[in-house]
Amino acid sequence: MAQYKAPLRDIRFLLEEVFDYPHTIATFEAFRDFDLDTVMAMVEQVGDFAANEMLPLNKSGDAAGIQLDPATHTVTTPAGYKELYRAFVEQGLVSLTQPAEFGGTGAPHCLNTVLGEIQTSCNLAFALAPGLSHGAMEALEHHAAPALRDVYLPKLVSGEWMATMCLTEPQCGTDLGLISTKAQAEGDHWKLTGTKIWITWGEHDLTENIIHLVLGRLPDAPAGIKGISLFLVPKILPDGTRNAITCGGLEHKMGIHASPTCVMNMEGAHAWLVGEPHKGMRGMFTMMNAARLMVGVQGLGAAEFAYQTALRFAKERRQSRSLNPARREAGQAADVILVHPDVRRMLLNIKASNEGLRALAYWTAINTDLSRSHPDERARQGAADLVALLTPLAKSYLTERGFDNISDAMQVCGGSGYTRDWDIEQTMRDERIAMIYEGTNHIQAIDLVGRKLGEDHGRLYHVFGEKISLFLKKNSANSALTDFALPLSKVFGRLNEATQLLATQGQPDPEFADAVASNYLNLFSLTAIAYLWCLQVKAALGQTDAFHLTKVKTARYFFDCILPETATLSALIRAGKGNMMDFAVEEF
Amino acid sequence: MAQYKAPLRDIRFLLEEVFDYPHTIATFEAFRDFDLDTVMAMVEQVGDFAANEMLPLNKSGDAAGIQLDPATHTVTTPAGYKELYRAFVEQGLVSLTQPAEFGGTGAPHCLNTVLGEIQTSCNLAFALAPGLSHGAMEALEHHAAPALRDVYLPKLVSGEWMATMCLTEPQCGTDLGLISTKAQAEGDHWKLTGTKIWITWGEHDLTENIIHLVLGRLPDAPAGIKGISLFLVPKILPDGTRNAITCGGLEHKMGIHASPTCVMNMEGAHAWLVGEPHKGMRGMFTMMNAARLMVGVQGLGAAEFAYQTALRFAKERRQSRSLNPARREAGQAADVILVHPDVRRMLLNIKASNEGLRALAYWTAINTDLSRSHPDERARQGAADLVALLTPLAKSYLTERGFDNISDAMQVCGGSGYTRDWDIEQTMRDERIAMIYEGTNHIQAIDLVGRKLGEDHGRLYHVFGEKISLFLKKNSANSALTDFALPLSKVFGRLNEATQLLATQGQPDPEFADAVASNYLNLFSLTAIAYLWCLQVKAALGQTDAFHLTKVKTARYFFDCILPETATLSALIRAGKGNMMDFAVEEF
Repeated sequence: MAQYKAPLRDIRFLLEEVFDYPHTIATFEAFRDFDLDTVMAMVEQVGDFAANEMLPLNKSGDAAGIQLDPATHTVTTPAGYKELYRAFVEQGLVSLTQPAEFGGTGAPHCLNTVLGEIQTSCNLAFALAPGLSHGAMEALEHHAAPALRDVYLPKLVSGEWMATMCLTEPQCGTDLGLISTKAQAEGDHWKLTGTKIWITWGEHDLTENIIHLVLGRLPDAPAGIKGISLFLVPKILPDGTRNAITCGGLEHKMGIHASPTCVMNMEGAHAWLVGEPHKGMRGMFTMMNAARLMVGVQGLGAAEFAYQTALRFAKERRQSRSLNPARREAGQAADVILVHPDVRRMLLNIKASNEGLRALAYWTAINTDLSRSHPDERARQGAADLVALLTPLAKSYLTERGFDNISDAMQVCGGSGYTRDWDIEQTMRDERIAMIYEGTNHIQAIDLVGRKLGEDHGRLYHVFGEKISLFLKKNSANSALTDFALPLSKVFGRLNEATQLLATQGQPDPEFADAVASNYLNLFSLTAIAYLWCLQVKAALGQTDAFHLTKVKTARYFFDCILPETATLSALIRAGKGNMMDFAVEEF
Repeated sequence: MAQYKAPLRDIRFLLEEVFDYPHTIATFEAFRDFDLDTVMAMVEQVGDFAANEMLPLNKSGDAAGIQLDPATHTVTTPAGYKELYRAFVEQGLVSLTQPAEFGGTGAPHCLNTVLGEIQTSCNLAFALAPGLSHGAMEALEHHAAPALRDVYLPKLVSGEWMATMCLTEPQCGTDLGLISTKAQAEGDHWKLTGTKIWITWGEHDLTENIIHLVLGRLPDAPAGIKGISLFLVPKILPDGTRNAITCGGLEHKMGIHASPTCVMNMEGAHAWLVGEPHKGMRGMFTMMNAARLMVGVQGLGAAEFAYQTALRFAKERRQSRSLNPARREAGQAADVILVHPDVRRMLLNIKASNEGLRALAYWTAINTDLSRSHPDERARQGAADLVALLTPLAKSYLTERGFDNISDAMQVCGGSGYTRDWDIEQTMRDERIAMIYEGTNHIQAIDLVGRKLGEDHGRLYHVFGEKISLFLKKNSANSALTDFALPLSKVFGRLNEATQLLATQGQPDPEFADAVASNYLNLFSLTAIAYLWCLQVKAALGQTDAFHLTKVKTARYFFDCILPETATLSALIRAGKGNMMDFAVEEF
């Protein structure tokens, strides 16, 4: 019943006309094999693969779930998942953006975002597995000693092995300073002992070996976050013996049932240090930034699937006559519900916000490549600043809005949407975790407000603000843009005002900053998306084909019917922490 | 693991100090046995019953689900549910508000709302079953011929039998005019043939007999909604034989797994007409109005359970130190997360909105009793007007806000909230249907905008507006109230402006009205709740005990940090239908 079609036209539009991929990334020496047509051919192929191979196992995987044999600590994935993983590897999807020197294809990183959305739309639980490997490969590439790296990286790139990230412990999730997993020296390596929880794809039968990247403490480690080191802990040791890291239990979750979420016990597990002692958070952040963007993309992918499903329903289902006699279909007792304004309102809320979310994800992704591969150093730095600033927005706003959009899509489908028949209920259950893992959405807001805004006297914010100011200045005479530039200018003013408030009130009072951070992140995201809609309009205006005409209409809808949300966000930021700190514990 | 405590203090406050139960309802002849202390003793007893008997079966019922034997069409409920139903009957909860002449206890109807919240907090799937019986009893009491009524009503009141409401057919949910179930005359009764879907508790093993109230058409029925009649179709006929109405299948849903949602097939089922031919919607509306308030209460009950759970988590879980050194607990590596502003923000958003939702539900419920039992006819009419106006708000806003609150509660609990261990995930899955069934939330908005607003030149709106104007006028000199009365006055202005816009633009253009109806309903709800918060503040001000002091603080939080949502709602209503009707089908 479930169907999916990759949004190829929108993808091409964003890459080609909005973010100018052909004249930037495609011209870089490293990416000369990846011109736009080549990339789009890959996207189309992956779209077919996701729709035909990944999606059919999405619902069956949810129903079957994951089985753990407590005696042997082995974990069995749903029927077909091993074969699906092999096919995924054969599609070249694991090695795609890895460097050629380790056996990778060397494609631009932005493809992870483009293809990640497609994969997530079709099977989130499965897509998580290679996604984690991807983050681990990044960490090994940048932080592991060559001897260690060369043993593990090629086999991860080839997909023969997979990897995990082991951060959380029972006493610490958000606050990693509380980590207590301990290392003891033994020869050239370490013995790790501790318990990790919430380990996604921590144990499974898709590959023979699993490479765990684990946060722990060396014997002489300082307390807190500055005493954390990163270790590599393989399930199977190079000599073929089983390492002392085992799955001690599975979480029973609302969704992503086909994805094992494991308790991992280490009892003197053989481990190697990755990077410098006590500097483990560095390697972990390398993994986390890419991972955070990918989690944001999960919100978008799920919302896109929900949209397509709800739209299909709205085109088929007949209930009530159109309120406008001119729209009534002859010979029918009722019209398709797509004629009803409220159904359109819900669908356009999803469509217009999804297309904005996609632009935000792509902007972040494109800047990742610019920050790494642009020949000009200043351009690299500016792009890196944008990535640093946009990553928390992408992770948080895409997952939060994505969830709301899924709920709206369910509402379009009425009772059908609540049943397993239409798959949206699974999408809702699966996607909800994205607001929590990889740093809760409020952790993203703290990252934005407490770290990114203050960096180097506001340099990052300045880079962002300059983009908007420049656009407004350059296009002030373009009357065709006025309907879009004017509200952009207004919301940018709101953001500036809120940023100023954070500087004057949040600086001296961290509780003020924490209280408004989540609303500020949303205001920031909507401002960024309004800017990106302006870029889309500018690219589309004057073109008379159906796609571009619809783009401008969708932009208009966004500015009229979504952007006004910023009125409330501004008011809430002005309200600050209100009286929320005045409540005693027993008053709650 | 799951725990629950009925919010007794808030319940008493609302009944006694805000809605003046002791000097209104308790003084009516019919309710002289139900003074406030008696009522509160009942509430406390039901709170204990719900926490100790209903809640423990909530999670096990979700896991076990419902079994259908297709050969015999029998449906088996989860372990313990038969015993639970018997205990529920013994608590007097089925007969509570039924008239004494049919074996009922004759309690005020508002108790259904008070106790309904408690039951829903603890076990929604189960609570649905007696809830449906209740609606059916109302319909039989008011519409069935005495001969028919006297056979069925006493056995429903005693709880020996249960009832259902059978409306939806595969081709019609929202649009009941499309109903095609057909009746053929046979002697003094009818033979019904057709298929009904989404029938909640349509078949089960809790009682021997099940009394179905079914919408269908007589042979001479006019087309559409004006040709629908209401029939009574028992599972077991008076002579003890099995009637030709059977369960043909169960829906597989996201939640309420312990509640069977049935396809019901009738093949010449023996049926009796309830009320007049072709006037079936009347009887159905009698059932639906009470049922709609009860569905709203489901949203509140679920959100209250989620709040209590998240609060328990936030008091136990330690992560990070407080941002304010003065709040740091000595001898701890981290503080309980309740000290963090963002956690407080989420919890207060839930607490302050839940207490507003409860006040809205009670206002509707109290007016139900006033409309039926007040000695003064004008008072009865005014109360009936309020019930008519408030019912769509209660159904839609409580379920929508309730769902958002559950999602916030999950966010407070982080990863734990996503697992089955903390029960919120089930609450989210269970509650989501409340936005859909009993008329989708948009149907409520249409009811408000298209029917209730226009009734008798706006009489209902006038009754509502007078309450607010009078309050503002009476209290204009009370400076202690200014912080609350001023924003009330402002939001009332916004609502008046929106209502005016609906009159001028929505009247001539039904598509405009439909496009803004849902946002208008939310603006209306927040206005009503702001008024009710003012009543709460007025009752609490000047009292120095902890409960009343916290009430005023919570009110302040509502006005500062929730009511600003109306800024966006106003802007969206002004945006009207925007360009949403300009999109061709293929542009979506």
